[in-house]
Amino acid sequence: MRRFGLVLLFVSGVVAAADAPSERPRPPTMAEVLAATLPSDWRGLDPGNTLYLQVPGGRVVIELAPAFAPLHAANIRTLVREKYFDGLAVVRSQDNFVVQWADPDGKRPLGTARATVPPEFTVPSQGLPFARLPDVDGYAPEVGFVDGFPVGRDPRTGEAWIAHCYAMVGVGRGNELDSGNGAELYVVTGQAPRQLDRNIAVVGRVVKGMELLSTLPRGTGAMGFYEKPGQYVPIQTVRLATDVPPGEREKLEVLRTDTATFMKLVESRRNRSDDWYKVPAGHIDLCNVPMVVRPQP
Amino acid sequence: MRRFGLVLLFVSGVVAAADAPSERPRPPTMAEVLAATLPSDWRGLDPGNTLYLQVPGGRVVIELAPAFAPLHAANIRTLVREKYFDGLAVVRSQDNFVVQWADPDGKRPLGTARATVPPEFTVPSQGLPFARLPDVDGYAPEVGFVDGFPVGRDPRTGEAWIAHCYAMVGVGRGNELDSGNGAELYVVTGQAPRQLDRNIAVVGRVVKGMELLSTLPRGTGAMGFYEKPGQYVPIQTVRLATDVPPGEREKLEVLRTDTATFMKLVESRRNRSDDWYKVPAGHIDLCNVPMVVRPQP
Repeated sequence: MRRFGLVLLFVSGVVAAADAPSERPRPPTMAEVLAATLPSDWRGLDPGNTLYLQVPGGRVVIELAPAFAPLHAANIRTLVREKYFDGLAVVRSQDNFVVQWADPDGKRPLGTARATVPPEFTVPSQGLPFARLPDVDGYAPEVGFVDGFPVGRDPRTGEAWIAHCYAMVGVGRGNELDSGNGAELYVVTGQAPRQLDRNIAVVGRVVKGMELLSTLPRGTGAMGFYEKPGQYVPIQTVRLATDVPPGEREKLEVLRTDTATFMKLVESRRNRSDDWYKVPAGHIDLCNVPMVVRPQP
Repeated sequence: MRRFGLVLLFVSGVVAAADAPSERPRPPTMAEVLAATLPSDWRGLDPGNTLYLQVPGGRVVIELAPAFAPLHAANIRTLVREKYFDGLAVVRSQDNFVVQWADPDGKRPLGTARATVPPEFTVPSQGLPFARLPDVDGYAPEVGFVDGFPVGRDPRTGEAWIAHCYAMVGVGRGNELDSGNGAELYVVTGQAPRQLDRNIAVVGRVVKGMELLSTLPRGTGAMGFYEKPGQYVPIQTVRLATDVPPGEREKLEVLRTDTATFMKLVESRRNRSDDWYKVPAGHIDLCNVPMVVRPQP
């Protein structure tokens, strides 16, 4: 059984340092930071901006980001309420990149939703509660978090944008900048494709159920599209949490990112203090900061 | 059908710029760079350092990196030749992190292989054919490629190491630095866990069949371990390519990384020139540079 303990004791690793003789106290691990959180370190999800995506494997929970893409979020809420997505399919799964769902036939009417939406690839950064990381980033002059979302910021232009990290949800578009309307959404399932930042609207993130999307068979067509309709993965329903009876809603909390606790958590991941590590990294990439979600206590 | 064309025309995207009136020629896309390669831009795989991992879904091809972990690579070759791995199992699949295989019972004798191997977490960088990228990196003072592998380098210490990018293969170890012997290997299936760099031996990379590992169901135990033996994914056999009849070997070539062609390819990804992109990134992360493999022509 010992062999199971190999590799990376970093999340559940129990460290005996409290019992070990030591001059200097060891900085806390992530588990220790989380164990010491207060109720005020957490927040709930706004049911008016939470989607439940039902696929055959279960329910995927998506938190929308109206602060970054208000028009896209509104159009998606309209599509959801008019049941546009029900019965559509995941049509694409490209290894180390994205899954994407859409109307395979391209015929379903958009109802009262807009066919085009003005680009919301960046927003003015002024007024956003930006919790900045000190870490260098190659894609953005500054990086940090805004209400749980990983964000790039450019003080020169005054813009901010959600970074394409794992589990982010974006709005597919064609070459025209306003051609994305939310009817076709993708989720990042691989190494952060940050080259997409500022080129497309990021409208949310998956907070539960990523494994239902990340393990979907990869499409063998160009760009990971499934080549045969029989390979499509059904999108059974998409619902706004507000339209689901309270008893059937997910009872989740996400760790706030505008707190001293969160910065301690980031530091616990930047410089791991558990015994397994020989060399601390001294750095953390924006997209390596864990998104922490828990059941409501 | 048009809707299929949305999002990210970047690989197969056909760009009509050659027909468009333009003062300044557009830089080549990756597809164009690849279409213009010469036979000398490619190299084969050394069958003496190529592993075939047979899982129920098919064959995974691993290229060992003896230049970075010679003792670990040698120990793994010994284990393979003595059929240590045959009949073992993938015992762990942690979402956005790694899959890992091992002896679930921890009882199989190591044969003539070593039980401990001195740490090979870094190597002297002198003499390595390091193709340096100009891009900033938070985890290493310098980054680039050595014979296809993504590498960090520190001119101050004179060390180099393989970076934990997607598809890299590492050697599980316990807290003791020499406790990894290659009997337990992991493959990166998520956002590059660069904090592992210099803390563990990276011994190779998957060059074909990543999707067979990356789509495995996630384990529901701590750290993604499968909780029930029935969930284990069999490792049917592992073979060195030299021990497989030539007619049954994979006929693959990988793009060399010590060429002007490769630097053109990196630039085509650093600043995308196809019409879909509004803003070029002006940067590429080491782990976003594609590993290009093709069937032998």
